[in-house]
Amino acid sequence: MSDNPSFVLLGIDNVTFEQRPIVEPAADEVLVQVKKTGICGSDVHFYVHGRIGDFIVEKPMVLGHESAGVIAKVGSGVTTLKVGDRVAIEPGATCRKCEYCKTARYQLCPDVVFAATPPNDGTLGRYYRVPADLAYPLPDHLSLEDGAMMEPLSVGIHAVAKLGEFQANQSIAVFGCGPVGILCMAVAKALGASRIIAVDIAPSRLEFAKSYAATDVFVPPAPEKDESRVAFSKRSAAAMQKALGIADRGPQAIDLVIDASGAEVSIQTGIRIAKTGGAFVQVGMGSPDVTIDMSVLITKELKMRGSFRYGPGDYKLAIALVAQGKIDLKPLVTHRFPFESALQAFKTTRQGKSDDGKGVIKAIISGPDVPLDSA
Amino acid sequence: MSDNPSFVLLGIDNVTFEQRPIVEPAADEVLVQVKKTGICGSDVHFYVHGRIGDFIVEKPMVLGHESAGVIAKVGSGVTTLKVGDRVAIEPGATCRKCEYCKTARYQLCPDVVFAATPPNDGTLGRYYRVPADLAYPLPDHLSLEDGAMMEPLSVGIHAVAKLGEFQANQSIAVFGCGPVGILCMAVAKALGASRIIAVDIAPSRLEFAKSYAATDVFVPPAPEKDESRVAFSKRSAAAMQKALGIADRGPQAIDLVIDASGAEVSIQTGIRIAKTGGAFVQVGMGSPDVTIDMSVLITKELKMRGSFRYGPGDYKLAIALVAQGKIDLKPLVTHRFPFESALQAFKTTRQGKSDDGKGVIKAIISGPDVPLDSA
Amino acid sequence: MSDNPSFVLLGIDNVTFEQRPIVEPAADEVLVQVKKTGICGSDVHFYVHGRIGDFIVEKPMVLGHESAGVIAKVGSGVTTLKVGDRVAIEPGATCRKCEYCKTARYQLCPDVVFAATPPNDGTLGRYYRVPADLAYPLPDHLSLEDGAMMEPLSVGIHAVAKLGEFQANQSIAVFGCGPVGILCMAVAKALGASRIIAVDIAPSRLEFAKSYAATDVFVPPAPEKDESRVAFSKRSAAAMQKALGIADRGPQAIDLVIDASGAEVSIQTGIRIAKTGGAFVQVGMGSPDVTIDMSVLITKELKMRGSFRYGPGDYKLAIALVAQGKIDLKPLVTHRFPFESALQAFKTTRQGKSDDGKGVIKAIISGPDVPLDSA
Amino acid sequence: MSDNPSFVLLGIDNVTFEQRPIVEPAADEVLVQVKKTGICGSDVHFYVHGRIGDFIVEKPMVLGHESAGVIAKVGSGVTTLKVGDRVAIEPGATCRKCEYCKTARYQLCPDVVFAATPPNDGTLGRYYRVPADLAYPLPDHLSLEDGAMMEPLSVGIHAVAKLGEFQANQSIAVFGCGPVGILCMAVAKALGASRIIAVDIAPSRLEFAKSYAATDVFVPPAPEKDESRVAFSKRSAAAMQKALGIADRGPQAIDLVIDASGAEVSIQTGIRIAKTGGAFVQVGMGSPDVTIDMSVLITKELKMRGSFRYGPGDYKLAIALVAQGKIDLKPLVTHRFPFESALQAFKTTRQGKSDDGKGVIKAIISGPDVPLDSA
Repeated sequence: MSDNPSFVLLGIDNVTFEQRPIVEPAADEVLVQVKKTGICGSDVHFYVHGRIGDFIVEKPMVLGHESAGVIAKVGSGVTTLKVGDRVAIEPGATCRKCEYCKTARYQLCPDVVFAATPPNDGTLGRYYRVPADLAYPLPDHLSLEDGAMMEPLSVGIHAVAKLGEFQANQSIAVFGCGPVGILCMAVAKALGASRIIAVDIAPSRLEFAKSYAATDVFVPPAPEKDESRVAFSKRSAAAMQKALGIADRGPQAIDLVIDASGAEVSIQTGIRIAKTGGAFVQVGMGSPDVTIDMSVLITKELKMRGSFRYGPGDYKLAIALVAQGKIDLKPLVTHRFPFESALQAFKTTRQGKSDDGKGVIKAIISGPDVPLDSA
Repeated sequence: MSDNPSFVLLGIDNVTFEQRPIVEPAADEVLVQVKKTGICGSDVHFYVHGRIGDFIVEKPMVLGHESAGVIAKVGSGVTTLKVGDRVAIEPGATCRKCEYCKTARYQLCPDVVFAATPPNDGTLGRYYRVPADLAYPLPDHLSLEDGAMMEPLSVGIHAVAKLGEFQANQSIAVFGCGPVGILCMAVAKALGASRIIAVDIAPSRLEFAKSYAATDVFVPPAPEKDESRVAFSKRSAAAMQKALGIADRGPQAIDLVIDASGAEVSIQTGIRIAKTGGAFVQVGMGSPDVTIDMSVLITKELKMRGSFRYGPGDYKLAIALVAQGKIDLKPLVTHRFPFESALQAFKTTRQGKSDDGKGVIKAIISGPDVPLDSA
Repeated sequence: MSDNPSFVLLGIDNVTFEQRPIVEPAADEVLVQVKKTGICGSDVHFYVHGRIGDFIVEKPMVLGHESAGVIAKVGSGVTTLKVGDRVAIEPGATCRKCEYCKTARYQLCPDVVFAATPPNDGTLGRYYRVPADLAYPLPDHLSLEDGAMMEPLSVGIHAVAKLGEFQANQSIAVFGCGPVGILCMAVAKALGASRIIAVDIAPSRLEFAKSYAATDVFVPPAPEKDESRVAFSKRSAAAMQKALGIADRGPQAIDLVIDASGAEVSIQTGIRIAKTGGAFVQVGMGSPDVTIDMSVLITKELKMRGSFRYGPGDYKLAIALVAQGKIDLKPLVTHRFPFESALQAFKTTRQGKSDDGKGVIKAIISGPDVPLDSA
Repeated sequence: MSDNPSFVLLGIDNVTFEQRPIVEPAADEVLVQVKKTGICGSDVHFYVHGRIGDFIVEKPMVLGHESAGVIAKVGSGVTTLKVGDRVAIEPGATCRKCEYCKTARYQLCPDVVFAATPPNDGTLGRYYRVPADLAYPLPDHLSLEDGAMMEPLSVGIHAVAKLGEFQANQSIAVFGCGPVGILCMAVAKALGASRIIAVDIAPSRLEFAKSYAATDVFVPPAPEKDESRVAFSKRSAAAMQKALGIADRGPQAIDLVIDASGAEVSIQTGIRIAKTGGAFVQVGMGSPDVTIDMSVLITKELKMRGSFRYGPGDYKLAIALVAQGKIDLKPLVTHRFPFESALQAFKTTRQGKSDDGKGVIKAIISGPDVPLDSA
């Protein structure tokens, strides 16, 4: 067990394959042979920009963090897993000692070791070491691709179910129909949403959203020449309210707004269309400086919150909802690549579609020597 | 009982005294003889601008909503109050039937009849009619001025105790040392704050805050020429963190930030200095369009919320905290005016100080024929 | 509009039909022509015992409180309903002024006027007057029988969704398979339960529960001669844990236990099989004095709570879940009686089955002159 | 560093002093030289009965778990503590991996290693090893005796502040005036209680409670001959309500009842006197089988909960409240013993007073060679 080819980011737009040492699992850790890894917008962002905010790639880093695989080795103290078990990997190992780890908010742990967030290596190699409690056994009827998708699904669960406190018979609007936005809708549907509104500027994405989880879709208007951003957001909100019969209060109101686009106009519009007393959760990173209407926040007593990755229990609920058939992840995997084509996977995700014109929702890279069609 | 002189806003900068009919209390209502009324920034705003947001003064309106008085008449079904009882008046009568009234958020009731919010008349007359359950008996050792101050105190309780979920041993920073900001600090102190930081650009206000409730004070830097608002807020936040030893996490972090200033730079700075996983509550109305750093909201999972007036239970807690001696309202009453000098009270509040240079925190107008020094 | 035949309880086992005056609706009230009324265990209890706890029938009282009908008249201020609208009736009119009404717990209002709770008349007449906001419009595709069932369904929603805080992917065990127990299971299923265990001593009830909502059923053992109640409950709990693979913790643990039986051994067993850190909600009235094992309560930090009727929002959610097809109430209506056979409906419910041996889940009495098969 | 004299329980009523090996701290652990240890009722229970419930002393066990001391050695990875630091010891090391550890309820961790709970050794030796994050630095102005008292204080914080969700201006009744009951009152006082009622059958304990934290005291009546337990509890509750003017609702109602006695009649009475919609928290272990009136639980929707040890954040708040002067622990230390008199400390605690008749609230045993009056 010494062959560990890995897909490594050297710098902006500069990747390579390298052999990396295999890290021996400690007593309470396991070594996972990685079989399937999804490409996330953040992976592409590191590849293109070499950084996300304050996280800067300063030395070569193995990419990838949405992964599933098979247990290759278990630490001496591990009793809950055995070699050969199929598992989804939760890619952030937290300190377990800080205030956040002790108060059910480990997503805020300052000492987390998160795969493919600098300076930590990611999962796009043959092997990845992880604490045993972060390797979640997959039920037999779930595929390893399902397992790899648990990471973005957990992001949706965190935003919708945990921070958004979404309940049965509530309504939701999701701005942005990328993988996370789509998965937020899937979570809302699984939890018994009364109405799911998808918003995006790309009709093809809305078409998929409608076929997958949304009950309504909306294409926002384009800004007019010389129109201020605030005026534009007011017009956009009014258009959306009229087109979909959205009210500030009552059964036609939107209980939860999720922004998974990061676009300023989406955030502005979302705040305006949210129910009085409702909630707005920001899950997509985007332009950091966004002008919002504080008077709306006040008169509605809007609950506005940023959602960061996922916290305790989110993986467990993600796997359960898929296992129970309440969420089907298969339609989201649009592209598959062998390990040696990892760069092509990144390029395809970056351009949003493959050369045949097929739009990317999620591209999956198989592990080294793992067949594309392995379950 | 027919003499009801009232202080009426006719239009922008245009007030008069008028006789108004006395409204007979219905079965479950009481008629209060108003003895003391505080002037609020919103009263002055109507006087100066004729509107606040979508609330526009379109016909003559009696001003005033922070009042206490004595029961003059009780409706036929009222058993809990009797003529002569001293009461604080909660000035918003809600519908009791809507979703918000039924779910403990009556501050969001769309059909509220709120004193001196157009088109409803306010309390600056001899008499004011109110549902009996909104007239709160004052303990003997509290004055009618204390009673009039329960309204702004309830605003502070709503922001800090209810929406801010402030707990003993937490820390707070309050931007803006007007009456509401000062009362937010008083609430935090009464609830057992470990640290109370007051922020204002006026040293005299900070001096009072320090003598009254704050443990620390901070004067923000001035913006530099050509400095962008974002850059300025970053510099301001860094200066405040350094000066006061504020950290993102741990015992030196700020659990709750209240903005009672409405100023953009305060909001921007407040979001930056709040604890990871902490809360930010906006209580002061101000510039509606504020540019905030969404990436901070996300990586901290900040709980951001607008606070609107006050909700169920806030008056009760306000009176209790004052009755128990945990909050002393007396130092906040800086100016007193007889009823016939109501206009002077508005002018003095508007200019922030009286002709003798004494800064205004709260000016109180006595009811018609009520002595200035009546308790 | 003067003919108002009503079914009146005169005393223990003593009922009659009487003409009753029709009460004119006040401005914010409506008069409902009652079309369908379900018989509840509490109705039968008053009929048999003349009292429930401290509620004693001291003067003739119209029976019935689970009703739906058609608006016959609206008060002068009612704008949300019109004559002819089909509505479900929430049968408790609360004071809207007390602490409980103002803090989203109006089920605890001491001044509630609840149909067929002494001394208030119930709904088993031609007409019933109710505040307009307690008459909930029924979607077209729901029947008036569905409407009558909203009352017991709301009891289930209150116990499971509100007090039990039941979430998707949680597990539940329900002791007692009467209408309320069955509806608690229906709610859990609609909210996405991972496992629903029905417990009853009657195999026929369990059979129905399994066909309707339960994933597992359990018939408790019989007590042995001279076995103490505590020993019996321990044995019963152990048998249940073994038969169904129930654990104290982890995926095999039971997140929420509902007792809808009121039987001491059910309560004792339920506390023992609940998950560590889980919840136990008591919804069925029964023997008041129940011996429980406090050490279990402590070491599990069990959240134990009594559930009383239903609170704000429960009717709304009940109607929504039925309208969305997540709960089907039709299989629960096992018996139908015309108004003039109301006594027979009570007798049939009391004996638990009709003369043809068919077990009663819910018997519905039609209003005066209302056909049995009217929708 | 090899001399580690320890006070060891061999069996029922059978203790000895033994040399025990000193356990080397792992990378993230520290070795504490124990200076002060309080005696808890559970320690005495093990000494007298050899077990508590399912926890059975099957091999020699060092006693003691309420301790403070000085850091003697730090593990290689510890950066937050250094040799010589004065610390309070949180005596339960949890697994950090289970559902409970990850969801802010580590008191329910099934794999906790808790000092002096079989089979784990306790703190009554010269040295005790503990994870570094469970050794809490003591502010300079707190004594090591204060540090030892943080354990029972945390029990009070957990019951009152966390599970009881006690807020400023709420009222509390505490049954049982042993150390935990007294500390529950101290916590309620520190959090701003409006009223604190102490209940005990020993007037001397009530006298101390009154001087320390209680606003009211009550001695329950004695049971009458042949009076049933239920009848007795009804009479006791009525007597208490009358004597102290306690109501079911409103300002005279009791928001939170704590039973720290474990006595059945206390629990029964406590449930009856709690406010409608209020809470009852059981913190004292006692007779496991207690007969309660479920109809009271239901009609009040009482929130009843068992409290087990303490959870995340409780130690931190305990130390802060003492450091801020809101709780004074000094009056509770009534007896002090040198290490070699440990047995006498146990005997004195067991009999509830010393030979001079002075009642025991808390007895403290100094570590080996530690002077009685060391701070």
